[in-house]
Amino acid sequence: MRTLDLVLPDTRYPIHIGQGLLDQGGLIARVLPQQKAMIVSNETVAPLYLERLRAALAREGVETLTVVLPDGEDYKDWATLNRIFDALLKAGCERKTALIALGGGVVGDMTGFAAACYQRGVPFVQVPTTLLAQVDSSVGGKTAINHPQGKNMIGAFYQPRAVIADMDLLDTLPDRELSAGLAEVVKYGLLGDAAFFGWLEDNMALLRARDKQALAYAVEHCCRMKADIVGQDEKEQGVRALLNLGHTFGHAIEAGLGFGVWLHGEAVAAGMLLAADTSRALGWISNDDVVRTETLLAAAGLPTRAPDLGAERWMSLMSHDKKAENGSVRYVLLKEIGYAVVANAPTDIVNSILCGKFIQHSLKV
Amino acid sequence: MRTLDLVLPDTRYPIHIGQGLLDQGGLIARVLPQQKAMIVSNETVAPLYLERLRAALAREGVETLTVVLPDGEDYKDWATLNRIFDALLKAGCERKTALIALGGGVVGDMTGFAAACYQRGVPFVQVPTTLLAQVDSSVGGKTAINHPQGKNMIGAFYQPRAVIADMDLLDTLPDRELSAGLAEVVKYGLLGDAAFFGWLEDNMALLRARDKQALAYAVEHCCRMKADIVGQDEKEQGVRALLNLGHTFGHAIEAGLGFGVWLHGEAVAAGMLLAADTSRALGWISNDDVVRTETLLAAAGLPTRAPDLGAERWMSLMSHDKKAENGSVRYVLLKEIGYAVVANAPTDIVNSILCGKFIQHSLKV
Repeated sequence: MRTLDLVLPDTRYPIHIGQGLLDQGGLIARVLPQQKAMIVSNETVAPLYLERLRAALAREGVETLTVVLPDGEDYKDWATLNRIFDALLKAGCERKTALIALGGGVVGDMTGFAAACYQRGVPFVQVPTTLLAQVDSSVGGKTAINHPQGKNMIGAFYQPRAVIADMDLLDTLPDRELSAGLAEVVKYGLLGDAAFFGWLEDNMALLRARDKQALAYAVEHCCRMKADIVGQDEKEQGVRALLNLGHTFGHAIEAGLGFGVWLHGEAVAAGMLLAADTSRALGWISNDDVVRTETLLAAAGLPTRAPDLGAERWMSLMSHDKKAENGSVRYVLLKEIGYAVVANAPTDIVNSILCGKFIQHSLKV
Repeated sequence: MRTLDLVLPDTRYPIHIGQGLLDQGGLIARVLPQQKAMIVSNETVAPLYLERLRAALAREGVETLTVVLPDGEDYKDWATLNRIFDALLKAGCERKTALIALGGGVVGDMTGFAAACYQRGVPFVQVPTTLLAQVDSSVGGKTAINHPQGKNMIGAFYQPRAVIADMDLLDTLPDRELSAGLAEVVKYGLLGDAAFFGWLEDNMALLRARDKQALAYAVEHCCRMKADIVGQDEKEQGVRALLNLGHTFGHAIEAGLGFGVWLHGEAVAAGMLLAADTSRALGWISNDDVVRTETLLAAAGLPTRAPDLGAERWMSLMSHDKKAENGSVRYVLLKEIGYAVVANAPTDIVNSILCGKFIQHSLKV
């Protein structure tokens, strides 16, 4: 097991990465203020891992309650969130009763937001069960639910007390979900680490074959980058926005198609290609860099062609992006592979790209 | 105008108290990061003050949008909160678009919670229009909505950028609402300032006659006490819990009767008497002190007799109190007038009091 520390002005917490961690209840028990916790999971994950986690915690003397939510991004809404509140109140949970998120990004985001709001804040722990959650969403304290008009529009910055990333849990992850997680992995290379991008080009086949060592290396590398960035900018006033590479476009895809039609990672992959296309149109990155990006995402089993939402709908959806300022959408764009910046982009260029004038011509040029 | 500063580890903000402040748009404009804001008000307050506030802000170059909610505690729920989110998204409001709460405690709590959650946090300003909001709820950053099973169960600690308490706005406050605000004023004397309690005994008639100087003195005194307490303990880990005097019982009354049947201040008044009764039953305060408390609350036009919810329902409702620990309800009780503590109380004593054995015998002993 390797442990990273995420250090913030007001708190710090460990990110444990390794194998066999689900059965080590002590990793969680030691950060709980009370020998009682509510585990939040979903219908897919619960049958696989819920009882093992409960047993591990019971061995540490921690009594657990559970709430099992339906699975999927389209349930990341107030009605489902309220099921967590109902369960907490019904069970008489108190301010010191912790919530434990056992699941992927949706479960983690909702459990974190429930923890942020219940009684104005209770402790919580992340046990991510998908690659996407392990490398990205479980770390850094972004929690949220969706609004029909925008992804993650309602939420909080609220940090967990610990993150437990057990590589063994990836054994049961469907291939499509594994690929979705790899989109966020590629993101880290693209936005800030050209060497890691190169490593991914060399090792994508190993990752897709679920080689545990390769996965652990990637998870640790991404978490280290994320911990470093979030440590500098917890509330996304500056550098943290770079972690949104591909997300301005990607969130529009998710909301535009209806939440859950594309997986978040799939939308981010197509979104990163649109960001790369935009960056090339601005003369910032070379066609070679776009080709490398598209090739790597394709090798990860990800879509590289965005759905056609129509330019107007694209712009309307992106206008809700959280980085927008004074009515102007801001994008995370690439100066080169491994070097991203937040920037405005001329609407006509973005429009041309969204209309397909530049899209995915990269491999054909 | 007098200005107090609430100083916290991460932020500080001014509380302006005086007359004619609603028309001084600069007090708000100077704390906005963007020349655009959304004013949230309710159907009762909006016709009285909304256009004046908009005009004052327009003079400072601030464009305002508005959302007007139905009035009352029974609307302090998710459905109504969502109307704020809908309006924000429809208007394309961004992370730098501030929310301004123009109303009483319900509008302030909901607007603050909406500001805490929208895009994970946007700036907000409190313009309290009721005495209760001016002396208590607008200061200190507690925001929340109710859950059918408990008052303020879902919320956040989220601080405003400024509080504008204009005494002139109290001119239109119904008598019943004025009395409800006086309950929180009496609370400050009871929990921590015997001299102020004495001043209230001497000046209650002036306050009920809406003498502006007396009101401003009381508001400033309460805000100073609150700023001092919140400055020591923003997240209610310790001393801040004392501000809940009367609220453990009071919240049970509100939830038990259905939100909005009793005003919050009325429930707190009856709750403070129950806390006083409990304190006397424990041998902590004298019968004289209970009589003084009851007399002052009655002079403020407040109910001093709690509704009969039945002991079992009382206990069930109070078990959700946010101060509960390890299944045990904790109360704010009185060692003397001006000296409150957080303590457990034997269930049989509390039960006896809730069953009426000790209740409101004070004036008859």
